[in-house]
Amino acid sequence: MFAWAMSTLPPNVSNAFFLVLKACAGLQVRFCTNETTITRKQLLAELTGFGFDVQESEIFSPIPAVCQILQNRGLRPHLLVANACMPDFADVDQTNPNCVVIADAESNFSYENLNKAFQLLMSLEKPVLFSLGKGKYYKHGTELVLDAGPFMKGLEYACDITAECVMVGDDIVGDVGGAQGAGMRGVQVRTGKYRSKDDSHPTVQADGRVDNLAQAKSKRSNVL
Amino acid sequence: MFAWAMSTLPPNVSNAFFLVLKACAGLQVRFCTNETTITRKQLLAELTGFGFDVQESEIFSPIPAVCQILQNRGLRPHLLVANACMPDFADVDQTNPNCVVIADAESNFSYENLNKAFQLLMSLEKPVLFSLGKGKYYKHGTELVLDAGPFMKGLEYACDITAECVMVGDDIVGDVGGAQGAGMRGVQVRTGKYRSKDDSHPTVQADGRVDNLAQAKSKRSNVL
Repeated sequence: MFAWAMSTLPPNVSNAFFLVLKACAGLQVRFCTNETTITRKQLLAELTGFGFDVQESEIFSPIPAVCQILQNRGLRPHLLVANACMPDFADVDQTNPNCVVIADAESNFSYENLNKAFQLLMSLEKPVLFSLGKGKYYKHGTELVLDAGPFMKGLEYACDITAECVMVGDDIVGDVGGAQGAGMRGVQVRTGKYRSKDDSHPTVQADGRVDNLAQAKSKRSNVL
Repeated sequence: MFAWAMSTLPPNVSNAFFLVLKACAGLQVRFCTNETTITRKQLLAELTGFGFDVQESEIFSPIPAVCQILQNRGLRPHLLVANACMPDFADVDQTNPNCVVIADAESNFSYENLNKAFQLLMSLEKPVLFSLGKGKYYKHGTELVLDAGPFMKGLEYACDITAECVMVGDDIVGDVGGAQGAGMRGVQVRTGKYRSKDDSHPTVQADGRVDNLAQAKSKRSNVL
């Protein structure tokens, strides 16, 4: 797995290096990011711009994951996210919302918008809040700026709820078990290092499994 | 003590009732509010407008309390508060700030302003955050809106700190002891129901005492 932060990709990580990784026997490469301020297509364009020969399906980011969760559970989100990532939610029914999804919304974290999210949560019999990350802050240019985590904490406090966090990964112990140990739900994706024997792992039981997070669009799986 | 919420003062609480309270032998009346969106002069004008014969010194609100704390501890605040209450901080040195004070800042709770407060806290060796209330929400007109508490929680989470909360009251058990039981510092004001024997109360020791919160301007007391 190759994790990166946008605009901090080290210059010495070249496509040649990437191709070497890909060429290694049995080694699958995934680009994994917690980036939520732009669409996956834009992520792809940025990586391609850096010279990487990468497919969209090789990029793992939080928005496709939450879209699948929303579909599986029949949830219609009120979105408090950055404008630039809105197209990734285009296929998600947002009418008559019955949950709130927040991500790094940047300047959309206004008092007015936070109140709208808060008011919806307070109106729900069973308020559901998803936060696409719990990060405290990150570096934007030369400044540290607030990430989604502090706003998640604020809404949790205001509404007496706990946001739902889900870890989706291919490592039954490191990803799934690690997430469960941190109080999150752990879902395993049947790609990468997944092996069928993970289904009966002696110490870790995944909260669910999906075949391919990036491409899964059906409502059949009910694990998220 | 008479606590009220602005714009929800019950119509049957008249000045006559207030004067009856004042006339009762040994009974001192104080107007106590957690209102932080306007100045104490404006609070006085509102109460006077309701027909109350009240003095400014009879109104207890959070801003004069925090101003005294700032003076006593030599702290210079970065303010994240409502525009309307700024005049109450006019005498407070705000140059080269070394702490943050937040209150119900309403629309001033923008991403930009929250980042400024966050960045200052992160730049301080010993970050100090005061929150003039921990309220989750309140009713504004017909809507529930977010109070200062959720933003305090967000900044606490982002900076790994705990905001300072101080209860100032005249009741050694109910105010001071109650605050201490809730994890706050409890300071007793020597007015109202204060008695000199409170100084040696068998079960509650105040974290400090001040003669008169409303009028205290000196730096002599070092209790807050």
